[in-house]
Amino acid sequence: MAMTETVKKILSHYESDNPGTKANLARILMQGKLAGTGKLVILPVDQGFEHGPARSFAPNPAAYDPYYHYQLAIDAGLSAYAAPLGMLEVGAAEFAGQIPTILKVNSSNSLATDKNQAITGSVSDALRLGCSAIGFTIYPGSEFAFDLMEEIREMAEEAKSVGLAVVIWSYPRGPMLDKAGETALDICAYAAHMAALLGAHIIKVKPPTDVISLEAAKKSYAGFDASTMAKRVKHVVNSCFAGKRIVVFSGGEAKSLEGLYQEIRGLRDGGANGSIIGRNTFQRPREEALAMLQTITDIYLNKA
Amino acid sequence: MAMTETVKKILSHYESDNPGTKANLARILMQGKLAGTGKLVILPVDQGFEHGPARSFAPNPAAYDPYYHYQLAIDAGLSAYAAPLGMLEVGAAEFAGQIPTILKVNSSNSLATDKNQAITGSVSDALRLGCSAIGFTIYPGSEFAFDLMEEIREMAEEAKSVGLAVVIWSYPRGPMLDKAGETALDICAYAAHMAALLGAHIIKVKPPTDVISLEAAKKSYAGFDASTMAKRVKHVVNSCFAGKRIVVFSGGEAKSLEGLYQEIRGLRDGGANGSIIGRNTFQRPREEALAMLQTITDIYLNKA
Amino acid sequence: MAMTETVKKILSHYESDNPGTKANLARILMQGKLAGTGKLVILPVDQGFEHGPARSFAPNPAAYDPYYHYQLAIDAGLSAYAAPLGMLEVGAAEFAGQIPTILKVNSSNSLATDKNQAITGSVSDALRLGCSAIGFTIYPGSEFAFDLMEEIREMAEEAKSVGLAVVIWSYPRGPMLDKAGETALDICAYAAHMAALLGAHIIKVKPPTDVISLEAAKKSYAGFDASTMAKRVKHVVNSCFAGKRIVVFSGGEAKSLEGLYQEIRGLRDGGANGSIIGRNTFQRPREEALAMLQTITDIYLNKA
Amino acid sequence: MAMTETVKKILSHYESDNPGTKANLARILMQGKLAGTGKLVILPVDQGFEHGPARSFAPNPAAYDPYYHYQLAIDAGLSAYAAPLGMLEVGAAEFAGQIPTILKVNSSNSLATDKNQAITGSVSDALRLGCSAIGFTIYPGSEFAFDLMEEIREMAEEAKSVGLAVVIWSYPRGPMLDKAGETALDICAYAAHMAALLGAHIIKVKPPTDVISLEAAKKSYAGFDASTMAKRVKHVVNSCFAGKRIVVFSGGEAKSLEGLYQEIRGLRDGGANGSIIGRNTFQRPREEALAMLQTITDIYLNKA
Amino acid sequence: MAMTETVKKILSHYESDNPGTKANLARILMQGKLAGTGKLVILPVDQGFEHGPARSFAPNPAAYDPYYHYQLAIDAGLSAYAAPLGMLEVGAAEFAGQIPTILKVNSSNSLATDKNQAITGSVSDALRLGCSAIGFTIYPGSEFAFDLMEEIREMAEEAKSVGLAVVIWSYPRGPMLDKAGETALDICAYAAHMAALLGAHIIKVKPPTDVISLEAAKKSYAGFDASTMAKRVKHVVNSCFAGKRIVVFSGGEAKSLEGLYQEIRGLRDGGANGSIIGRNTFQRPREEALAMLQTITDIYLNKA
Repeated sequence: MAMTETVKKILSHYESDNPGTKANLARILMQGKLAGTGKLVILPVDQGFEHGPARSFAPNPAAYDPYYHYQLAIDAGLSAYAAPLGMLEVGAAEFAGQIPTILKVNSSNSLATDKNQAITGSVSDALRLGCSAIGFTIYPGSEFAFDLMEEIREMAEEAKSVGLAVVIWSYPRGPMLDKAGETALDICAYAAHMAALLGAHIIKVKPPTDVISLEAAKKSYAGFDASTMAKRVKHVVNSCFAGKRIVVFSGGEAKSLEGLYQEIRGLRDGGANGSIIGRNTFQRPREEALAMLQTITDIYLNKA
Repeated sequence: MAMTETVKKILSHYESDNPGTKANLARILMQGKLAGTGKLVILPVDQGFEHGPARSFAPNPAAYDPYYHYQLAIDAGLSAYAAPLGMLEVGAAEFAGQIPTILKVNSSNSLATDKNQAITGSVSDALRLGCSAIGFTIYPGSEFAFDLMEEIREMAEEAKSVGLAVVIWSYPRGPMLDKAGETALDICAYAAHMAALLGAHIIKVKPPTDVISLEAAKKSYAGFDASTMAKRVKHVVNSCFAGKRIVVFSGGEAKSLEGLYQEIRGLRDGGANGSIIGRNTFQRPREEALAMLQTITDIYLNKA
Repeated sequence: MAMTETVKKILSHYESDNPGTKANLARILMQGKLAGTGKLVILPVDQGFEHGPARSFAPNPAAYDPYYHYQLAIDAGLSAYAAPLGMLEVGAAEFAGQIPTILKVNSSNSLATDKNQAITGSVSDALRLGCSAIGFTIYPGSEFAFDLMEEIREMAEEAKSVGLAVVIWSYPRGPMLDKAGETALDICAYAAHMAALLGAHIIKVKPPTDVISLEAAKKSYAGFDASTMAKRVKHVVNSCFAGKRIVVFSGGEAKSLEGLYQEIRGLRDGGANGSIIGRNTFQRPREEALAMLQTITDIYLNKA
Repeated sequence: MAMTETVKKILSHYESDNPGTKANLARILMQGKLAGTGKLVILPVDQGFEHGPARSFAPNPAAYDPYYHYQLAIDAGLSAYAAPLGMLEVGAAEFAGQIPTILKVNSSNSLATDKNQAITGSVSDALRLGCSAIGFTIYPGSEFAFDLMEEIREMAEEAKSVGLAVVIWSYPRGPMLDKAGETALDICAYAAHMAALLGAHIIKVKPPTDVISLEAAKKSYAGFDASTMAKRVKHVVNSCFAGKRIVVFSGGEAKSLEGLYQEIRGLRDGGANGSIIGRNTFQRPREEALAMLQTITDIYLNKA
Repeated sequence: MAMTETVKKILSHYESDNPGTKANLARILMQGKLAGTGKLVILPVDQGFEHGPARSFAPNPAAYDPYYHYQLAIDAGLSAYAAPLGMLEVGAAEFAGQIPTILKVNSSNSLATDKNQAITGSVSDALRLGCSAIGFTIYPGSEFAFDLMEEIREMAEEAKSVGLAVVIWSYPRGPMLDKAGETALDICAYAAHMAALLGAHIIKVKPPTDVISLEAAKKSYAGFDASTMAKRVKHVVNSCFAGKRIVVFSGGEAKSLEGLYQEIRGLRDGGANGSIIGRNTFQRPREEALAMLQTITDIYLNKA
């Protein structure tokens, strides 16, 4: 299909980037059922690293097979598929050219002793596997936050030089943050903003609650109406350079399907560019997942 | 002998890899008495590093000589021989071309103060010594787990670029794991899965017990029938990309020969690709070892 | 099959080489129907470069397909298959591990304006494609001979450092040589000797005639009995470090099958290590080619 | 003198090494009064680094001068002289070609805060100074053991590629070892074995006592007769690849001359390749030192 | 044997060189029957490249085998053995440490169309093969003289940095020189001087005749008594920095044994450091060659 004005407009915000990076962003934005709308839904499958195989895949055993996820993302008409090295290596040749992929280049795990991540992929890996982007997680607030930021800075510089896009997962955690703080509005906006400042092309955060966590920030939010997801998301999007960077949101805590759809409508109404939905997707039977993804797509198409 | 359909099927899961790496995997899979079956038995001799020479070789003094192990692996019709640098350097020229070798590129030892490993070999060493693969140990759960993962990530990328295969020994240990946890089913499957995600072509873990160690994982294993080795191994194999990666198991704790055979029948029935058997092999007289390896081979051939 | 004393003896002449190179020589010498005999038959398919596709493949159109040659070499039980980059890239993954391959790293063509060759492959290419050796053509006597020698010197050093073997095609031509001179006994022996001096592990020349071409050499050949191929070949083999380097001969001019067999019996009786046979092989129907290669193999096995 | 069968036999165990490394090993083995016997005595002068100048040289002030040690090693007919960078730089030109030298490329000192060593020389230094080998100390058991192992791995790879030999001083120390443990038989054998596994061509350890230190190792030594130095040394030599690597022993604790000779007779009878004797040599007047070294040489020649 | 004052004196002229290079010069000067005398006899076997195998080796067929030359040089007590890459590769491991070797790193051949040479070996090759020096031919007077000079400049710089010595064969030829001119006294002295200026440690030229070739030089030689070889050689030696560089002479044209001895007496009396004698050596039966080399050695020892 022909490039749309909407996508051209989005790309115009990345004019410092080289045409290679722009082309990879365009590939993601012109893929699947949301092609050309400026909206995107990404399937991420890095939970095996984070939680182990059984917690991730036992609910839907077909998902143990890396091919499953490639096929699901393709069949659901999603925008991109993100996974760690080994996961992509199994299917990258089989599904070459069928869907944009994002190599998740760092990972943590449930046995880890630190709130840190290991670098588990490289820009060279991303090129040889035909990926459109690298994905990297930072933990603002962690004792390792500066290390993580320096790692992505270096990898992002390399990625951009070879025409790849950079996706940053920005997940606040650490000694200054309680559980509520990790998804507080001010923290979420702050985390998104730092990802933007680090040079991310696409920023992934969790849907924010109406909590304001940081004492020093409370004055700034006095009078702010955080009563709806749409209003909160609009603030987060605004915190990403007034919407000049693509921002997508994770599915958040497990909830009912209707609850999920309601949340996504909030994201949409707040101006989010889309969703990254992992467990909610691959932990249900394929037919159910396809139906769910159709609804989500429809929400972003303003048809649901 | 001609390449078999079974081996072609296995190699088809590595289609992201270059032909050099595929050829080295094929060499291992087409070697010895199990050639062409998709099964493999590897002789690893890194216990000298891990436990010292006397604990390793005094039970069978002929084993102090590196030639001994090359000859044993060849005569027993094994699939490959794995050892640290110096061990391979002594015999690599003498036995050139007679059996695929795996250079163990990191090692720990009983005098170590950390649950870490030293890098003791390189990809260049592997090439000049004519090896088919590098082998690397990670300790998921250790304070050094991220460091180890980043080391193998870098070495694996280099190894793959020059057509070598990558074998990861994944041995959980560390502050979150008690002795039972190190071989618990959930931990074993998790360790195997992480090795796969890190891009290993061949994954080595210990045979799992029926323990479930991680609190967070217990729900996922509710109702899981872990009563036999075969069932547990099937889960571990499944955790390696639904069997799309080669998984082999160590000999585990010292036990009677019959106990060992019984265990290996369980590995086989669970779909394991094979065994890595070190101490059980070289700590008995050569004739006994050959007889034992013949039985093990027969088990994998479904003849015992 | 177990390494033979004959092959061990040959490998002992390469003791300056690292075990990786020895292993690759061993692979070639332990492959196919001549495994272990110290004899070898190699299928080279670089004629497409040299003469164009139709002159090369029209006589047997199945040969347009690179798979055809891999399969033919495997089914005929040959020792190795040699071809330029693109030819190997098509089949290297499909046939990985089934037959040792030699990447021909330079090539000429019929449209060329110089008696020179272009470098068309690299040592890195050879590694990623899983090759056992690189192959290189020099033209002693050409105005470009020194350039070609310097090119292979550099590539051979690199190849040896990463455990590959080096095959040199030594084809005399140039202003000092008429057509008869190119295959003259003294020139052939000289060309083979220079390949050996350049550090080749395997040397390929054309079967020599009884012509002595170089004026200055005639005295040295006074009284030399060059009446049979066996006697001439013995001299060429002797010129390769008294037989301490592997020497193989091309099929030479087109001739009847019986003429070819007769020539190969001469090569064998003169102590040649084997034959490289391209056009004679792939320009006839597969069944005829297999029958011919069986006879050639039998000749080297002293059974025909 | 002509190369002896004994030395040829020793060199045959290094067939993975290039001829340059073999030549340098041969130089050491064909030097001085023990030339050709397979035995060697090396003069090491790194005590200035370890203990400071006065503790090292005040007992025999002539030894402050680097020329002194070169001349002593030459006049005593020793096999090689080992020292840190500056020490060799002073005399390397003056004594060029007169005795093989070993550049000690790392060093510790009495003011150090860690049980670690600094890298104080390079492979390039060794080449420009005309050395035959590099020497490196590891401290198995130290908190820095892994770092030291990784350092020598990298330096050894480089040294071997340019034809130098590698000598590893393996000195156990660290939190798991008390004073008795540092020279315990099991620890000494283990330390020697690890040096061999790291790819050392020559291994230096201290003479072992009859202590068994590692709890886990005691069972393996049950029934082992450790009553004489010869029996203990035989075990250490065996732990170095069944004697396929050269093992030399330091002079150990200060003792009477007769005690030293008795100890060296034990080393000899146990199959040690020789001794490295520093302080015992240069801390006595030159004439006494020469007489002592003559006796030690005679012991290794079975004449004393 | 102990370093002599004569050799120390020679080495003192190379005090700009690093100790590695000095040690390699010392090795050559302290080897064989002329050890310590400052005289040397080198066996060069590069005639196979220059003239082809039959012209080189047919007169004494044992010489086709590279081992032959190593053994001959060793048994004759020569100072060094020089040969191209392949020739050294065959024997470098077998004869490691038995005689200093010189890697001839460029070569010409009788089929060449230019008076040029190809680079056929490298400094890295020399190191891995354990050589003491590289050897290089320049053709002063050739259209390629500047190229050759620039090549050896670059290689000499590298060789010196890693402690190797540099030998330059300086053979005048080219459009300005007729056959007589190539060995004319003025040209020979000029060629030797240019080799010295290029930084050679050892210079090889042909014995000069009493011809003065260069018109412009004739005035300078007016009154010069060139009537004896000794007087001419003295001039050549003087042209090499007043004898501060080692100069050796080739055997020159084939002649009777007595003629050869007479010539060498002239070289000796003129102050030459020695001879490089190839064809005269290996083209006669071994026993005759040994007898001849004994006489030559005796001449340099002033005993014949």
